[in-house]
Amino acid sequence: MFKYSFQNDYSEGAHPRIIEALIKTNMQQQIGYSEDEYCLSAAEKIQAAIGNPEADIHFVSGGTQANLLVLSSFLRPFESVIAVDSGHICVHETGAVEATGHKVHIVKGKDGKVTAPEIQAVVDEHYFEHMVKPRAVYISQSTEIGTIYSAAELREVSGLCRKLGLILYMDGARLGSALTSRQSDLDLKEASSLVDVFYIGGTKNGALIGEAIVINNPELKPDFRYCIKQRGALLAKGRILGIQFDELFKDNLYFDLARHANQMAERLTQGMAALGYTFLTDSPTNQIFPILPNDIIEKLRQDYLFYDWVKVDEKRTSVRLVTSWATSEETVDEFLNDLKKIS
Amino acid sequence: MFKYSFQNDYSEGAHPRIIEALIKTNMQQQIGYSEDEYCLSAAEKIQAAIGNPEADIHFVSGGTQANLLVLSSFLRPFESVIAVDSGHICVHETGAVEATGHKVHIVKGKDGKVTAPEIQAVVDEHYFEHMVKPRAVYISQSTEIGTIYSAAELREVSGLCRKLGLILYMDGARLGSALTSRQSDLDLKEASSLVDVFYIGGTKNGALIGEAIVINNPELKPDFRYCIKQRGALLAKGRILGIQFDELFKDNLYFDLARHANQMAERLTQGMAALGYTFLTDSPTNQIFPILPNDIIEKLRQDYLFYDWVKVDEKRTSVRLVTSWATSEETVDEFLNDLKKIS
Amino acid sequence: MFKYSFQNDYSEGAHPRIIEALIKTNMQQQIGYSEDEYCLSAAEKIQAAIGNPEADIHFVSGGTQANLLVLSSFLRPFESVIAVDSGHICVHETGAVEATGHKVHIVKGKDGKVTAPEIQAVVDEHYFEHMVKPRAVYISQSTEIGTIYSAAELREVSGLCRKLGLILYMDGARLGSALTSRQSDLDLKEASSLVDVFYIGGTKNGALIGEAIVINNPELKPDFRYCIKQRGALLAKGRILGIQFDELFKDNLYFDLARHANQMAERLTQGMAALGYTFLTDSPTNQIFPILPNDIIEKLRQDYLFYDWVKVDEKRTSVRLVTSWATSEETVDEFLNDLKKIS
Amino acid sequence: MFKYSFQNDYSEGAHPRIIEALIKTNMQQQIGYSEDEYCLSAAEKIQAAIGNPEADIHFVSGGTQANLLVLSSFLRPFESVIAVDSGHICVHETGAVEATGHKVHIVKGKDGKVTAPEIQAVVDEHYFEHMVKPRAVYISQSTEIGTIYSAAELREVSGLCRKLGLILYMDGARLGSALTSRQSDLDLKEASSLVDVFYIGGTKNGALIGEAIVINNPELKPDFRYCIKQRGALLAKGRILGIQFDELFKDNLYFDLARHANQMAERLTQGMAALGYTFLTDSPTNQIFPILPNDIIEKLRQDYLFYDWVKVDEKRTSVRLVTSWATSEETVDEFLNDLKKIS
Repeated sequence: MFKYSFQNDYSEGAHPRIIEALIKTNMQQQIGYSEDEYCLSAAEKIQAAIGNPEADIHFVSGGTQANLLVLSSFLRPFESVIAVDSGHICVHETGAVEATGHKVHIVKGKDGKVTAPEIQAVVDEHYFEHMVKPRAVYISQSTEIGTIYSAAELREVSGLCRKLGLILYMDGARLGSALTSRQSDLDLKEASSLVDVFYIGGTKNGALIGEAIVINNPELKPDFRYCIKQRGALLAKGRILGIQFDELFKDNLYFDLARHANQMAERLTQGMAALGYTFLTDSPTNQIFPILPNDIIEKLRQDYLFYDWVKVDEKRTSVRLVTSWATSEETVDEFLNDLKKIS
Repeated sequence: MFKYSFQNDYSEGAHPRIIEALIKTNMQQQIGYSEDEYCLSAAEKIQAAIGNPEADIHFVSGGTQANLLVLSSFLRPFESVIAVDSGHICVHETGAVEATGHKVHIVKGKDGKVTAPEIQAVVDEHYFEHMVKPRAVYISQSTEIGTIYSAAELREVSGLCRKLGLILYMDGARLGSALTSRQSDLDLKEASSLVDVFYIGGTKNGALIGEAIVINNPELKPDFRYCIKQRGALLAKGRILGIQFDELFKDNLYFDLARHANQMAERLTQGMAALGYTFLTDSPTNQIFPILPNDIIEKLRQDYLFYDWVKVDEKRTSVRLVTSWATSEETVDEFLNDLKKIS
Repeated sequence: MFKYSFQNDYSEGAHPRIIEALIKTNMQQQIGYSEDEYCLSAAEKIQAAIGNPEADIHFVSGGTQANLLVLSSFLRPFESVIAVDSGHICVHETGAVEATGHKVHIVKGKDGKVTAPEIQAVVDEHYFEHMVKPRAVYISQSTEIGTIYSAAELREVSGLCRKLGLILYMDGARLGSALTSRQSDLDLKEASSLVDVFYIGGTKNGALIGEAIVINNPELKPDFRYCIKQRGALLAKGRILGIQFDELFKDNLYFDLARHANQMAERLTQGMAALGYTFLTDSPTNQIFPILPNDIIEKLRQDYLFYDWVKVDEKRTSVRLVTSWATSEETVDEFLNDLKKIS
Repeated sequence: MFKYSFQNDYSEGAHPRIIEALIKTNMQQQIGYSEDEYCLSAAEKIQAAIGNPEADIHFVSGGTQANLLVLSSFLRPFESVIAVDSGHICVHETGAVEATGHKVHIVKGKDGKVTAPEIQAVVDEHYFEHMVKPRAVYISQSTEIGTIYSAAELREVSGLCRKLGLILYMDGARLGSALTSRQSDLDLKEASSLVDVFYIGGTKNGALIGEAIVINNPELKPDFRYCIKQRGALLAKGRILGIQFDELFKDNLYFDLARHANQMAERLTQGMAALGYTFLTDSPTNQIFPILPNDIIEKLRQDYLFYDWVKVDEKRTSVRLVTSWATSEETVDEFLNDLKKIS
């Protein structure tokens, strides 16, 4: 048995308020396939939160599903997607985008983020019909290594995409963590306004399952439900997605949960820094990457679950610690105490 | 507002025991992606129930997803699937199987069931490389029109598939209803033993979401989890599928819920027959297809939700009434009373 | 050894004028990938012949390639194609269209032709996102069983497609034979004007290889060369397609060859009718389907190659005899004499 | 008008002996779809030339077609291909491999060649079901930048692939040039024996069109013709591929043509080196990459066609000159004279 798992932000079930909402509505009869009153209500709350009453909102069960669905829906067969090398679609989705027929251009990026000059370069290099045609840019906010796009960075990427006619798609699996980060100078309204389509992650922020896809660009709206159904992503009991997002977007719950996760990561960071440890990246979100001696890691592993991230040198490794809405201050402090004892 | 919806068997949330199990386990930390202890336990219970300890069990969130996933995983690009014209993959999945590259041969069938001579005919007609190569047969138990394969029928289809080297895949969205039907002479063990791969439907039998894919044929097992992930069907919180199926396969709950749904359908059938109505098919499961005068239908619709199925003549239409684990005797009786009043 | 093969219209190489053109141009250096002067010249001749100087003309090497390329280029993932059961894409292309992700609706048709009411019915039956969305109609002119669409028939189908927003695609593998048929009341200009996209078959009408895809509908033109390249259909030495079509559309050669093939089929038909034989269909093109006693067929097979088409009764079978630009009157008369001897 | 095009090795038609063979056989009737006597005879000659009488030989019309066909035929949906960044499938095939659903891993390579350590690294990095599963390695011989794998290099890559269970596929668009290169220490027999499947390029070595796919690995043989047909790659008049390869593999013609192309490139190289020019790569094959001052390039372009390859510095660019079976000594010398005059 272990004391606590820092492996990810989806180790527990759902936030109690969500469970409560599921219980309360359980025996109501609702229309299927996300046409129920809760999906409708949740969509309205999200439209208000992003400041776009015209946005189309669709609920699906997971992030890989959202990514493959969105990208395959809008592209013609020869069109391609640009992403950074650590991007989820490049690494951890078993080639889901390619399985729908589209090439992903992998750029090196900076701090886990695609840069405008890289986008320009890929477009410039692909100029005739013997090559794929870049048509979309995939970004994650926050990124896979815990960093976030600043307002200036996102505006620059967005401006370039609009100039070049590229669809900008933002994977928001951890969008809450990004927007409530101490470093963030973007709010949800602006972030939404800068992209054509994105999703608001529920699974990693207190929901049992669920992601809310938001389509801002009117050209991308037609017939999207056909695509959802064809990819097996239209839940019969779509209500359970609506009920959860309706609750998450009541009283700021979505942002409160994300902020809490960030604060726990920050508490971990400060505690470990105080013990003299350094970090692979300066992460302002709920994933941190402390560098620890290998023998310390082995001792920690007796009580805690977490993933090794990258070997730093012969004696040290950077590990990934992920906090969530469910991580308590007590757990963090106990971890820091345990670490202090063995350091 | 309406009194009751007979539109489908997924209008409510989940059976209270399932909600209870989700609550009880909610704050436990579990490994992601269906490698948690509940998925493991549920898989063992299913292996025991089907009498095949070697079967691979995988949990996904919906039926279309299960169908496209299973069929695309085992077929080479030029291989095809045989299905009956009313089959779910032929009609109501937005071409999900074709979207993975495979042709579906549509046969006429008998009472919603593929027949052995039809399978033989399709195989015989496709004999060289200018034609697709039939490689799998898709059947549903119960079928889309409420009928079931008898033991003799399933044995015949199974025997032919084995002789011809075809993969037999059974869509069990309503498998519980089929096996607990008054007409059924098949139990789960034998049904499982006759097919290469099938799924046990949870969504339509009391679960919040979830279907359990069972792979009996060892040749079809390798690397199936790669396919699940690639199609966006591997839930991060796979635990919620495991918890539900673990509960459904405790104390016969799965079969009790299905039997109840059948009994409510039977009660409806007898009550309507007593009022002089006839039926489109002799359905022994939880979907029935009474034929009603159009004016009666319009009156019923003021209080009840249900779908028109097919126009029988100028004045009469067959409607579909679906019962579920959540349909009460009182509801059925109220419906029958209301019908009596307007008949 | 056999005296003559009536198996198909591509048993020989190319018409001598085409060989001559290949020889004459052989050592010229030309730009690759169908941007050479011969492709350009051939495109202009075809634009003139169809009366549409704005049409885009693309050359590919075969009919299955043209069909899968055209249909996959214009459809979104959930869109489908309507075709008649004997259509080439339904039977003899190894599921090439489905392999690009699209469902083909198979209708029964009349005399090998899709009818307007069938198109309307398929569209009517597919009305929401759980079903594919019909978006294109595939027809062949002449059909697989030798029949042709009359002007009235094609106008009706065309008018309905335009009304319904469906793309009408005409497979013209044997378009020459159709247009020069004694029954034809359509010329190339009108046939072209009634469809969004079609191809003019070269392989079955005297070319070594090659089909000319014609895109009339401006919405379908953008980026088609990307699709050609991606499907492996853009020949490096595209010149050989251009040279052949440039020759075929000089001095009416294309139509002269097709007319000759039809005349040879007509000569066969009249000769066999004079011997008392009947036919499965009233074919006015270069494929005929005489019904012969099985013992006569076996004797004929000692000297001639042809395919059995369908068993008519216990003692008789309909066979398919195909004539071509390369079939001589002498060959036809010898065959008729041989048949007379054994009849 | 221009004096000569060094843009590629497919600017002319076919070698006169091939034209002669097409003329001679033109009016013979042959079975379609590459089952004719010439395809059979050509296959036997190739089997003898590679020293593997059990190899399956299939003829298709172009290289992109061969690549997408081969790679998509053997891979399960989640399996991927490793290739070097300059590889044809990575750059110049409009994402044809991805369009069949498979990810291509791009490695940096060395001199245009994939290295064994890179293959090992990609395999090591992909170790569980959230990632694609590397299953094939794509190499070109000669490479896109004119280099060749030595026997030692190819043996090392081959040995590693066999150890790791990877399919090794060799794109032989310019295999003749590679094997007849002054640097080559590999013959066709050994090259063939080291790979599972490869193709012998005809289009770039004197044929009108055509590539011969060779399958050595027995596990990859079944049902390959289904794949050819499904991808639109099975020519009705397959004879024209058979006739050409039958001629190419008579009296060493294939190798003589390739050797001539190499010799012309060597003559160019020596002549330009004598004028003081240097080269981007040390190419022993029929593509060379001299570095020239930009003003010289502009003057040359008035009489010659060729592609710029890469900008070397502000004043100089490396251009690509390609020679072929059709390039004469006189042409080379004239070019060198013209260059001398303006240097």
